[in-house]
Amino acid sequence: MDKVAIIGATGYSGAEIVTLLLSHPGVELTTLMTANTDRQQTKPQKYSQVLPQFFRLCDLPVEPLDFDELQKREISVVFLATPNETSHELVPHLLQRQIRVIDLSGSYRLRSPSLYSEWYGFQHHFPNLLDQAVYGLTEIKREQIRGVQLLANPGCYPTSILLPLIPLKCRGLINSEVEIVCDSKSGVSGAGKSPSPTTHFSEVTESFRAYNLLKHRHTPEIRQELGNDNLIFTPHLLPINRGILSTIYARVHRTVTESMVADCLQDAYKGEPFVRVYPDGTLPEIKFVAHTNFCDIGWRLDAARSTLILISTLDNIGKGAAGQAVQNLNVMLGVEETAGLR
Amino acid sequence: MDKVAIIGATGYSGAEIVTLLLSHPGVELTTLMTANTDRQQTKPQKYSQVLPQFFRLCDLPVEPLDFDELQKREISVVFLATPNETSHELVPHLLQRQIRVIDLSGSYRLRSPSLYSEWYGFQHHFPNLLDQAVYGLTEIKREQIRGVQLLANPGCYPTSILLPLIPLKCRGLINSEVEIVCDSKSGVSGAGKSPSPTTHFSEVTESFRAYNLLKHRHTPEIRQELGNDNLIFTPHLLPINRGILSTIYARVHRTVTESMVADCLQDAYKGEPFVRVYPDGTLPEIKFVAHTNFCDIGWRLDAARSTLILISTLDNIGKGAAGQAVQNLNVMLGVEETAGLR
Amino acid sequence: MDKVAIIGATGYSGAEIVTLLLSHPGVELTTLMTANTDRQQTKPQKYSQVLPQFFRLCDLPVEPLDFDELQKREISVVFLATPNETSHELVPHLLQRQIRVIDLSGSYRLRSPSLYSEWYGFQHHFPNLLDQAVYGLTEIKREQIRGVQLLANPGCYPTSILLPLIPLKCRGLINSEVEIVCDSKSGVSGAGKSPSPTTHFSEVTESFRAYNLLKHRHTPEIRQELGNDNLIFTPHLLPINRGILSTIYARVHRTVTESMVADCLQDAYKGEPFVRVYPDGTLPEIKFVAHTNFCDIGWRLDAARSTLILISTLDNIGKGAAGQAVQNLNVMLGVEETAGLR
Amino acid sequence: MDKVAIIGATGYSGAEIVTLLLSHPGVELTTLMTANTDRQQTKPQKYSQVLPQFFRLCDLPVEPLDFDELQKREISVVFLATPNETSHELVPHLLQRQIRVIDLSGSYRLRSPSLYSEWYGFQHHFPNLLDQAVYGLTEIKREQIRGVQLLANPGCYPTSILLPLIPLKCRGLINSEVEIVCDSKSGVSGAGKSPSPTTHFSEVTESFRAYNLLKHRHTPEIRQELGNDNLIFTPHLLPINRGILSTIYARVHRTVTESMVADCLQDAYKGEPFVRVYPDGTLPEIKFVAHTNFCDIGWRLDAARSTLILISTLDNIGKGAAGQAVQNLNVMLGVEETAGLR
Repeated sequence: MDKVAIIGATGYSGAEIVTLLLSHPGVELTTLMTANTDRQQTKPQKYSQVLPQFFRLCDLPVEPLDFDELQKREISVVFLATPNETSHELVPHLLQRQIRVIDLSGSYRLRSPSLYSEWYGFQHHFPNLLDQAVYGLTEIKREQIRGVQLLANPGCYPTSILLPLIPLKCRGLINSEVEIVCDSKSGVSGAGKSPSPTTHFSEVTESFRAYNLLKHRHTPEIRQELGNDNLIFTPHLLPINRGILSTIYARVHRTVTESMVADCLQDAYKGEPFVRVYPDGTLPEIKFVAHTNFCDIGWRLDAARSTLILISTLDNIGKGAAGQAVQNLNVMLGVEETAGLR
Repeated sequence: MDKVAIIGATGYSGAEIVTLLLSHPGVELTTLMTANTDRQQTKPQKYSQVLPQFFRLCDLPVEPLDFDELQKREISVVFLATPNETSHELVPHLLQRQIRVIDLSGSYRLRSPSLYSEWYGFQHHFPNLLDQAVYGLTEIKREQIRGVQLLANPGCYPTSILLPLIPLKCRGLINSEVEIVCDSKSGVSGAGKSPSPTTHFSEVTESFRAYNLLKHRHTPEIRQELGNDNLIFTPHLLPINRGILSTIYARVHRTVTESMVADCLQDAYKGEPFVRVYPDGTLPEIKFVAHTNFCDIGWRLDAARSTLILISTLDNIGKGAAGQAVQNLNVMLGVEETAGLR
Repeated sequence: MDKVAIIGATGYSGAEIVTLLLSHPGVELTTLMTANTDRQQTKPQKYSQVLPQFFRLCDLPVEPLDFDELQKREISVVFLATPNETSHELVPHLLQRQIRVIDLSGSYRLRSPSLYSEWYGFQHHFPNLLDQAVYGLTEIKREQIRGVQLLANPGCYPTSILLPLIPLKCRGLINSEVEIVCDSKSGVSGAGKSPSPTTHFSEVTESFRAYNLLKHRHTPEIRQELGNDNLIFTPHLLPINRGILSTIYARVHRTVTESMVADCLQDAYKGEPFVRVYPDGTLPEIKFVAHTNFCDIGWRLDAARSTLILISTLDNIGKGAAGQAVQNLNVMLGVEETAGLR
Repeated sequence: MDKVAIIGATGYSGAEIVTLLLSHPGVELTTLMTANTDRQQTKPQKYSQVLPQFFRLCDLPVEPLDFDELQKREISVVFLATPNETSHELVPHLLQRQIRVIDLSGSYRLRSPSLYSEWYGFQHHFPNLLDQAVYGLTEIKREQIRGVQLLANPGCYPTSILLPLIPLKCRGLINSEVEIVCDSKSGVSGAGKSPSPTTHFSEVTESFRAYNLLKHRHTPEIRQELGNDNLIFTPHLLPINRGILSTIYARVHRTVTESMVADCLQDAYKGEPFVRVYPDGTLPEIKFVAHTNFCDIGWRLDAARSTLILISTLDNIGKGAAGQAVQNLNVMLGVEETAGLR
């Protein structure tokens, strides 16, 4: 049975990977490490001491980072649930030890290195690895994922936007001359576990706000994967813990009908275990997908205005991060794609 | 001092009017009535027995509906905080007794009677009153409001959308050939006080959803007042009690600059006590306007895509209903416009 | 493989049983029925049409109630996730068809029939079945549960209060002369799925209240199972969906020390898969048990005042209802007790 | 008109004082200072730049701390909305400049200096000021407050517990031989504005927990003011922003009846503008007092067990902090006690 490790296991995505792997029949989670190499500073603790919900469920130690130790323990795949800059630095060390990597950060998602200076605020030092990395939108890139060494796990917002749009674009239903408007709303866990003034409970409850207008890092990722620069993305912060809902407004060609939209989406995701195209008359809601690996899709067509409104939902920690990461692990290892995810 | 009455005082908007009038120096709230005329059925209760938060603050009785009694008590203005069909029926009775009406429902907002069959599901019997009614968006219609007998108080969503868009449209900054997308999010109090499966706490908390896609009744109201049929409106339900945030995407002409937008909005609302145009770099949040009569406006311009993103916020029970209703009362009675609202 | 059915499958507890059984390796869920026998009135619907979150997960029809059909389909065990009065009526019909019953209502929990008139407001017609029923607090009654025909699944509050108190009482640590105070706080799902003014989102969010003081139906259940009439129980409504936390104040004998408490609780639940006694210094929180079958217990001793403060948590729909029901099913059928629950 | 200043105006209590004073007819808020004396570090900002909700409402600068400047500007009263250690240091400097102080921290509430080492973790250097300070529970200490130089504004939890208990104790209804159990639940704003792991939105929403068992600093404050050491206080954290509900269990003498309790509480607070004793059958809820200066009280008597259950509610930022502070200001200055508070 393949052995896997998680670096950054105490954050929200890391903890969700632990949860999923605890009931995964095909891999063994043997190692949890922090992103910190300092053995002095990092007092060894059991995982359940850091996160009491794992009491009696996971008592692995949280160890300081040690690449050689990972190799010695014959780890097949490492999940990096670490900040962008950290992943950027760690990936080459792991690859050179023949350890396959699933990176949940954004550090290897963009193909053009210059986009990192522009959108992420750091200079990317490994352009060759950007060429090598596969963008792990499972349903779209399944074949490329099988043999990959470095998998860039997609962002939460991009997953919710790309899954509904890609089939429609591929089949030529969308009029690309008019901007596609993506108005997305996310729960607070998407901002990570570090406390900040903007994620303080009293600042979030009973409120709602847009943020990072025209500046969010997921923008170039969505444009790149859709192959459309004519797209506007606006993220908002919902007073909930987990979940994303994206409302997408796309101009379609005049001849497009409701059944053409239905057929396109139904065909694209027929047989897919984790994408649910809703039947007419039902719209996705965040509560239907929270704590799952589903991406749900619904829509309405304003024929008079040739505008298609798509509603997509997913759990930002599930299909938007840890869930899709485990789905990708399954594809990489050739085990049942739904293992650990139901 | 003018005497006023509220019909439907125990709903959320009604209770907010009571709260505002309790500290209003210029009018006297003397009468609270239900929309029900049945004296048998309606056991007389003190207001604070129905709503304990008013204990020791408002001990007026809640009386059954009685038009003659309103006249006998020399009520100048009646607030109708009643459902659409109820307001539709009550308004003529009040007007014929020379009582001025501020109707918080949608029953007298649309000028074309046929829109009521199409969007509201009932036939409007008083087209002449539709002609006579003034749409009470205070900042825009102040002069017409002064002498009005029948004021149709604006909807919560329309207020949040019209206040930012009207000045931009009037000054010709907006390219009307491309759809204006209005993606709005509202707290649950906008759905009223009657319990329903969709407003049950367990169904709303930690969730989020779009609703009434392409079918919401505020759509024709927004299109009518903006004079633009090329507008798409999508409401969503936030897991909060009070507040609306609208994210509006409008195509502007290529020559439009950030300072043109700033000048237009600043000029339009200079000196207005209840519309705040935010300085560059600050975006409105619902918590900044909850329990106030403010409508706050912020924006960003995507010059490369000639798209203006406007963010507006208000309290749906405040400026979106009861607050604007009291503001209109003040204009109608010629008292200080901010009385009771600070 | 044993076949099971759920009557009342569309409520919160019913839906949770469906979720748990979907991944249960040892039983087959074959039948979902409403508590309604009227075939005319009940339009047949697929489960996922009623509850869209089950789309592509459970497409069983929701059928009208039919005892003979249950027998014909060779159902071994029926879960009753129905209101008190309904369960009261249905149980005899099922038992006489040799179908074993797990009743999630309170209708068969109290041994004295007269308590039903006093606390539940209806007269109990089947006192002999009250004698026969086993109160299914799994960890305490495991042996009696194995062969039972009628299992009365415990209430959510009582489970959270009895699991910490029973071992302490049995070992004689508690001074029963002074009242035991049980101050419990529950999420809204405990009130069921029917909308009401007290569970309307706007009435619950950002608020908190005590309810049913000295009158809650779980009071006689707790007193009966603890064998202590000197106990006060106060429920409160938390603005959350799922979870209970009970804070219990019990006077202990003067000689009782912290290690005596620790030993007593640790011994009682050593090896139990679903009761976690926290190590010193850690207190349970609702988020640690939400969506699980755990009951977590922590405590502090005020030695100067001979008062033990116990904190217990569980998910009211999990260990407090559906989870414990499935745990009891497992015991009744002799399959692995944790099946479907991890 | 008296001039007042606030030190620590950007925290939650500070901002609430600003809000209240904006509509206060009898005092002038002229100065806002941080607790920081470093002019270099503290870039001068307008208040509304720090807190955008005050845009167009309060544009005072937030200045570095300067005692002489306060004196020069003829400030009569300073509100200290600062941490314990800060208030401890600042108070003597203000008093020696003849500036009266309303301290919202706990630093001058306890009469015995040794309690500060024990419960607050610092040594108190000004025992003589502890003698001089008046504990500002307005309804109880009104006479002493009028002429006071140093007012120690009560803690939020103690206010909610002392107001219901003091009259009952004074009239001898309570049996002090048995512990009084105070089980209190507070919103997150009580923890202040600094982000921390325990106030991160994702950690608080849909959860609930007890904290600081037997160690909370408000414990000695409650015991001191009630004159009863036989009292247990347990605080809990509610997933709401503002509000406290305390459930208090007190043993009463056997002869005590419901009407004796009612009479005692009604008499004690008759004519008090900010304490509402609920009529029989109505229990306080947090939403009835949020954003007000009320403390509401309800109760039930378990005569069979001689136990009185008291439920009290208040807004922890209102009557529990800023509201009571302004009420005390009014008493100190001899203006209408309700000024600014309705």
